[in-house]
Amino acid sequence: MPEPARHRIVVVGGGFAGLQAALKLAKRPVELTLVDRRNFHLFQPLAYQVATGALSPSEICYPLRTIFRGRRNVEVVLAEVAGFDLDARRVELRPVAEGVPAPATLEYDSLIVAGGSRYSYFGHDGWHAHAPELKSLEGALDIRSRILTALEAAEWEPDRERRCAWLTFVVVGAGPTGVEMAGQIAEIARDSVRDFRRADTAAARVLLVEVADRVLTGFPPSLSTSAERSLRKLGVTPLLEHTVTDIDGDAVTTSSPSGEQTRYGARTVVWAAGVAPSGLARVLADADADAGEVDRAGRVVVEEDLTLRGHPEVFALGDMVAIRRGDELQTLPGLAPVAMQQGRHAARMLLARLGGRKTQPFHYRDKGNLATIGRARAVADLKGMHLSGAPAWVTWLAVHLWYLIGFQNRLLVLTRWAFSFLTHGRGARLISGRNQPQP
Amino acid sequence: MPEPARHRIVVVGGGFAGLQAALKLAKRPVELTLVDRRNFHLFQPLAYQVATGALSPSEICYPLRTIFRGRRNVEVVLAEVAGFDLDARRVELRPVAEGVPAPATLEYDSLIVAGGSRYSYFGHDGWHAHAPELKSLEGALDIRSRILTALEAAEWEPDRERRCAWLTFVVVGAGPTGVEMAGQIAEIARDSVRDFRRADTAAARVLLVEVADRVLTGFPPSLSTSAERSLRKLGVTPLLEHTVTDIDGDAVTTSSPSGEQTRYGARTVVWAAGVAPSGLARVLADADADAGEVDRAGRVVVEEDLTLRGHPEVFALGDMVAIRRGDELQTLPGLAPVAMQQGRHAARMLLARLGGRKTQPFHYRDKGNLATIGRARAVADLKGMHLSGAPAWVTWLAVHLWYLIGFQNRLLVLTRWAFSFLTHGRGARLISGRNQPQP
Repeated sequence: MPEPARHRIVVVGGGFAGLQAALKLAKRPVELTLVDRRNFHLFQPLAYQVATGALSPSEICYPLRTIFRGRRNVEVVLAEVAGFDLDARRVELRPVAEGVPAPATLEYDSLIVAGGSRYSYFGHDGWHAHAPELKSLEGALDIRSRILTALEAAEWEPDRERRCAWLTFVVVGAGPTGVEMAGQIAEIARDSVRDFRRADTAAARVLLVEVADRVLTGFPPSLSTSAERSLRKLGVTPLLEHTVTDIDGDAVTTSSPSGEQTRYGARTVVWAAGVAPSGLARVLADADADAGEVDRAGRVVVEEDLTLRGHPEVFALGDMVAIRRGDELQTLPGLAPVAMQQGRHAARMLLARLGGRKTQPFHYRDKGNLATIGRARAVADLKGMHLSGAPAWVTWLAVHLWYLIGFQNRLLVLTRWAFSFLTHGRGARLISGRNQPQP
Repeated sequence: MPEPARHRIVVVGGGFAGLQAALKLAKRPVELTLVDRRNFHLFQPLAYQVATGALSPSEICYPLRTIFRGRRNVEVVLAEVAGFDLDARRVELRPVAEGVPAPATLEYDSLIVAGGSRYSYFGHDGWHAHAPELKSLEGALDIRSRILTALEAAEWEPDRERRCAWLTFVVVGAGPTGVEMAGQIAEIARDSVRDFRRADTAAARVLLVEVADRVLTGFPPSLSTSAERSLRKLGVTPLLEHTVTDIDGDAVTTSSPSGEQTRYGARTVVWAAGVAPSGLARVLADADADAGEVDRAGRVVVEEDLTLRGHPEVFALGDMVAIRRGDELQTLPGLAPVAMQQGRHAARMLLARLGGRKTQPFHYRDKGNLATIGRARAVADLKGMHLSGAPAWVTWLAVHLWYLIGFQNRLLVLTRWAFSFLTHGRGARLISGRNQPQP
């Protein structure tokens, strides 16, 4: 007797949301296909540590095939999504690179789309070349090479003003990523004093440009104040209520609240502001000409149970969605816990539907918010309990180690962090990538 | 009373030879400047493990500044050498990248040049695009992405012949690097069976093309036989006495001893043959129009004490030199131990000369030769004692762990190796680098 056909699920996106959904569903007797443009899951909250040479890429990137190695009912497809045919229940794919084959279409019974977000340069796409972002592994490695090259260049730059530009680092955006990045750059500069002979790296300027009136706007004001104090102690200068009006590779121009323009000579700029939903949000909305809808930012609108209106078999989640709550649209912060909870919720609702049960609305359970600023400095907002300093930092360490995938990676990261803490060193200070001299 | 001017030493090249010389000299009251095009020392004997995802770049690359962190008498300069003015005792530099400042010249009292070697494509420079080498970190990462992409592509390639080309891996050159690379690719293919659903990765072909009549020509014939047997067991097909006549991205064409041409469909090719001395060898020889001399391969000719004829203050060492022994020219194998011994010898001779003592000829003390082939398989030639199998492999592990720089790196590498051995997994299987989809 032939086995009855199993329910076919396609999950698009191996970020936090898609991965959590896939992990939960993979344990059930379903046929699951996970599609991603990259062959690995990036633990994005620690990407800034790759950018500062504290961690190595493979310590925060996990090959998707390895994660699902034991699961014969899971397929991993390396491809880009070109479109969705919601009536035919089909995902259209294209290869990630010319000549690399991928299936043209995937048929599904249920679909989960979790395309995530990407950095947005507010229409100034030209800034990308001068101010890499931290959303991709390549962006993080590019930033690492730029920071280290700037310190090397400062050592030999004879002109005072140009040397100052090599030693000026600008971080745009004071969310958790921007704050963590600014703090680490300040620490690198301070710790590098022993590495250089001419340049006074301790005199490096780190400017943190933020349009709001405080850093870490996702945190309670008291923790923002505490974080700002820690940043200043490390030598970071927050430029609050400032906007960036130009980035040209030699300098960053900012505009103050009074409209005053200042041009800072700066060779190294990190972009940690302006997130936009993945382009897949619009592709998905357009797939249903009648009911498909995006909000002003381009997020696809989903029902409270995270399904698409009129398509109970299609879930969309993570940074690319806005949730319809009655007449309002709710957008949740772009944090890993939100995405992970949505991934698990979508998996549960999908299974409920398969079992003939009713789906439930998604509600984010905010367990807290963490940001680290530097060596033994962090802030934590845990269900109204506000921590700062060492206790917050230990909490940060424990939470991040816990969520890293795989015991081997936890051990490697713990080893690196222990050495960094004890020696003030960073093990992965390599200038690598494009345009390097070859042997 | 002003301190007497210290002896100024410039070391060019942070490979095994230059680094050993610099480490030894740094402990003395001299002013030392180390020049390299990269900001790190590459532990090249393990580059193939980065190419196969077993190790991460930062585990085999050590920032030069960190190595000399505690030494106030050492400067590290990130620059390329443009020329030598031996009369004026000056090294001319140029920046590694446009706009990155570097000193224009460095003055020296003594000079050590250790430019190493680079891969040579025997005049077929076009092959480089299709067959990356293992001399640079970027080459190793390129190979890693290609191997992993080939396995992904094979999974979805509908055409049988093209699928076969994705699953055919050609390694050119059966020296230690080629043998190690071929063995590891065969193991990846075999271990990946559980990762893929359609492609039979265990059916992958690994061809090892070698012009000589045995693999590992630097080893005694009995160990070559043993290594060949291990390779065949792993599924590697050695093509001995074969030469490569074409590499075009889709296929590799070889020529057999009888001149028969065979075209193997193969998308992934690794170049581990044909080493040429660094271009610095000729630049150095040309710096002395009278006495400067290169051999037919382009190596600079040095005296028995590793100095340049007529320039007792200039040492040249490593892969880029040939040693004049009476009327003969001696070239030593391009192995790390040779380079390291020459580095230490040059440092000792330089100090002897400073102390008014006579310099001694360099003699290579061959302590043995090691090559690993795969999981628990290796060959070792230790002062006439021939080992193969597990005992050779344990020796290989111990020697390589010992020579890694820094306790942290030994711990990280040991952790990775232990996990790889226990789980048949490779932690760093990331497809990254140029041309990757960005968020």
